[in-house]
Amino acid sequence: MPEVAIAGIGQTGVGEHWDVSLRELGFRAMDAAMQDAGGIRPSALFVGNMLAPSLSRQAHLGALLADFAGLTGIESILVEAAGASGAAALRQGYLAVRSGMVDSALVVGVEKFTDTIGPGAEAALATASDSDHEALHGLTPTAQAALIMQRYLFEYGVPQGGLAGFAQLAHANGAGNPNAMYQKAIKPEAYLETDMVCDPVNLFDIAPLADGAAAVLLARLEDLPAEHPYPPVVISGSGQASDTLALHDREDPLAFSALKMAAGKAFQQAGLTTEAVDFLEYHDAYSVFAALSLEASGFAAPGKGWELARAGELSLDGWLPCATLGGLKARGNPGGATGVYQAVEAALQLRELAGRNQVKGARVGMIQSLGGPAATAVCHILARPGN
Amino acid sequence: MPEVAIAGIGQTGVGEHWDVSLRELGFRAMDAAMQDAGGIRPSALFVGNMLAPSLSRQAHLGALLADFAGLTGIESILVEAAGASGAAALRQGYLAVRSGMVDSALVVGVEKFTDTIGPGAEAALATASDSDHEALHGLTPTAQAALIMQRYLFEYGVPQGGLAGFAQLAHANGAGNPNAMYQKAIKPEAYLETDMVCDPVNLFDIAPLADGAAAVLLARLEDLPAEHPYPPVVISGSGQASDTLALHDREDPLAFSALKMAAGKAFQQAGLTTEAVDFLEYHDAYSVFAALSLEASGFAAPGKGWELARAGELSLDGWLPCATLGGLKARGNPGGATGVYQAVEAALQLRELAGRNQVKGARVGMIQSLGGPAATAVCHILARPGN
Repeated sequence: MPEVAIAGIGQTGVGEHWDVSLRELGFRAMDAAMQDAGGIRPSALFVGNMLAPSLSRQAHLGALLADFAGLTGIESILVEAAGASGAAALRQGYLAVRSGMVDSALVVGVEKFTDTIGPGAEAALATASDSDHEALHGLTPTAQAALIMQRYLFEYGVPQGGLAGFAQLAHANGAGNPNAMYQKAIKPEAYLETDMVCDPVNLFDIAPLADGAAAVLLARLEDLPAEHPYPPVVISGSGQASDTLALHDREDPLAFSALKMAAGKAFQQAGLTTEAVDFLEYHDAYSVFAALSLEASGFAAPGKGWELARAGELSLDGWLPCATLGGLKARGNPGGATGVYQAVEAALQLRELAGRNQVKGARVGMIQSLGGPAATAVCHILARPGN
Repeated sequence: MPEVAIAGIGQTGVGEHWDVSLRELGFRAMDAAMQDAGGIRPSALFVGNMLAPSLSRQAHLGALLADFAGLTGIESILVEAAGASGAAALRQGYLAVRSGMVDSALVVGVEKFTDTIGPGAEAALATASDSDHEALHGLTPTAQAALIMQRYLFEYGVPQGGLAGFAQLAHANGAGNPNAMYQKAIKPEAYLETDMVCDPVNLFDIAPLADGAAAVLLARLEDLPAEHPYPPVVISGSGQASDTLALHDREDPLAFSALKMAAGKAFQQAGLTTEAVDFLEYHDAYSVFAALSLEASGFAAPGKGWELARAGELSLDGWLPCATLGGLKARGNPGGATGVYQAVEAALQLRELAGRNQVKGARVGMIQSLGGPAATAVCHILARPGN
C-alpha cells in the first residue's frame, strides 16, 4: 500500500467572515493547498462540513466546491461527523489514496457559523447530539460540556480555577499565529474573573464558534515532485472510533473511550507510543475536553490531565507541547474545518515553518478531533518520513 | 488489493413510515444485512443520508446509528452527495475495504422524507442545488428537471407521451417487488391522462419521495464464510465524478457528463463494456433522467434513450432490463437511501433471488446514482466473481 503524504496545505484566517461566501471561503483554502502542492492536481475532493445545510441552506458541497475551484469532473463528497467532520474527511481522503484507486485527494474543511440564515448556530449545533433524547429537552452542546466538567471537578477534587491552564496556554500560543481568531495572551487572573456561561463552564472554557476553511492535498509519497520546496510529511497512523451519542448511555462520562480506541489504532499503525509524540493538537472545544483527551489517549493518568496544563508542561518548551498554534480556544473553532486546521498546523510544525511557535525538532505530531463529547473521535499521526 | 464482496443485504419497505423513527428505520436495514451476512461483524459504518439534519433535526448519524445497532465503538461517518448519498457511501465503504485498513464495512442508506419537522421536503431538497443562484430564485429540483425535459423533447423531436415507457416499465416491475411503494402496473393511457406538475413533467415523470432504508455489508471476498448460503457477489467496478452544480453553467444540459465519466471509470476497472451488462439500475428520479442516463453511459445514442423504453427493450425479457424491481419511480425514492437500494436489488438479481422479476442468467449488473441533475454521479458494476 502506498505511503500517503501531505503534499500541500492551505488555510484562511479564522474569525467572522461576513464578506465571504461559504464557497469562496472553501475555495481560498483549496486554492492555497493546490498552489502549495506545486502542481499536483487532485483527483478527488473530500469536504468536511457540519452545518451548511442548516445555516447556509447549501448541501451537496462536494460538487459545488469542486466546480467552484475549477476541478469540475473530479469525484467529490461531503463527510459529516459533527465537530470531527474535517478529521473524518481527512481519514476518507487518506483511505482513498491508500486504496490505490485515487491518485491524490484534496481535503477541505469549511464552516460558516456566523452571518448565517436559518435557526442560529446553537440550535443547529444541537442536531449533532441525540435529537430525540437530548436536544429536544434543551441540552445544548455547552450544557453537555458543563455536565461533564462538573463531574470532572467533583470526581477528581479539582480546585477552583484548576482548568485555567488550558485557556492560558491556548491564548499564549494564539498570539503567535497570524491566522488565529484571538492573537493575545490572557492574564492568569482572567479565568477567575470572566463571565460564567453554564456553570461551571465559563467564557474561557469554551472555544469560540467561528468561520474558516483549511485544506490539505494528499498524494502518494513517491509522487511528490522532486523539486517540492518543503520536507515531506506523511500520515503514519490513522484511527477512528465512535461512542454512544447520548451522554446518559455511557458507563463513564469521563472516559472518552472512542478517543482511546482511535488513538490506540493510530499508535498501533505507526508502531509508536506516546513517548514518540513531539506535540499534540487536542480538541479543546471545551477545556475539560482537553483534559479528558490527554487522559484517554495515554498522555496523563485519569484525573491528572488538568495538572499538566497548570504545571506548564503543555507549553511550547514543555514536555508535551499542545495546541501549538492556539488550539480551538484561541485559533477558533470553525466546526467541520477544525480537524483540517489541525492537519495544516501539524504540517507547519513538521516543516519547521511555525515561526515563533515552532516546536524545536518536531518529527512526530498527533492530531485529535472530536464530534460531540467524543461520540466520534478521529486521530492521526503526522510525521517526517522514517519516524 | 482485496476483491470486495457484498456479504449481506437488507432493506425495509419503501413508503410512508410515520410510525418508525429515523434511527429505527436505519437499524432495520442494518440488522437485516448483518444477519444476512452470517456473522461477519462490520468494523466501519458508512451512512448515506441527504436531509436528516433539516427534516429530522438529527445530524451525526454515523455515531447515532452505530450505537443504536449495537455496534458502539466502530468508526462511522455520514456521506452526503444529494440524491447520490447512498451510492457515494457505498463507494467510500468499498474504498475503505479496498485499502486494507478496514476489514468490513456496513453501508446503510436511510431517509425520512415524510412525517418530518422543519421546512418541508421540497424546500430542503432545494439545498442540494446551487443555493445562491438557483434555489434562492425558486428553482426546485422538479422545476430543474422540467427545464431539462423541455430541452430534451425539443432537441430530439420527441412526440407527445414519448417518455411514457419509463413509468410503464417501472410500475410493471414494481408489481413484482414486495418492498416497492407502488406495486401495481399502470395502463398505457395513464401517462397522457395524469396531472401535470411542472410542464412538461407530469406525475408519472416523477419518482415519489418516500421513507426507506437499505444496507449492504461489504467484506473481502476471501473472508466470506464457507457456509455462506448465497453465491457471492463482488464489486468489479466503481466510479464517481461531478459536474457543475448549477444547470446554467453547463455547456450542454443534456450531456450528463459526470455520469459518462463515472460509468467509464467503472467499465474500465471491470474491464467490461456495455455489452457485458445483463441489467441496469438507472436513476429515474425523473423519466428524462433515465433517458439521459442510458445515453450518457453508452447504452443508447444521444436522443435515442426514450425509444428503448417505448420499444420495450428495457423490460425484464428485453435487450437491457432496467429498473428491474421498480426503479425510483415505482419502488420509491428515499433520497440518500436509493443508491443502496440499487445495490441490494442488484445483489438479489445476481443471487437469482429476484422472484418473478428475475433477469434470467444475470451475471453482471450496473447501478447508477445521481445527485441533482447528475452534478454527482456514482456508478458501480456488481457481478458474480469471474465475470
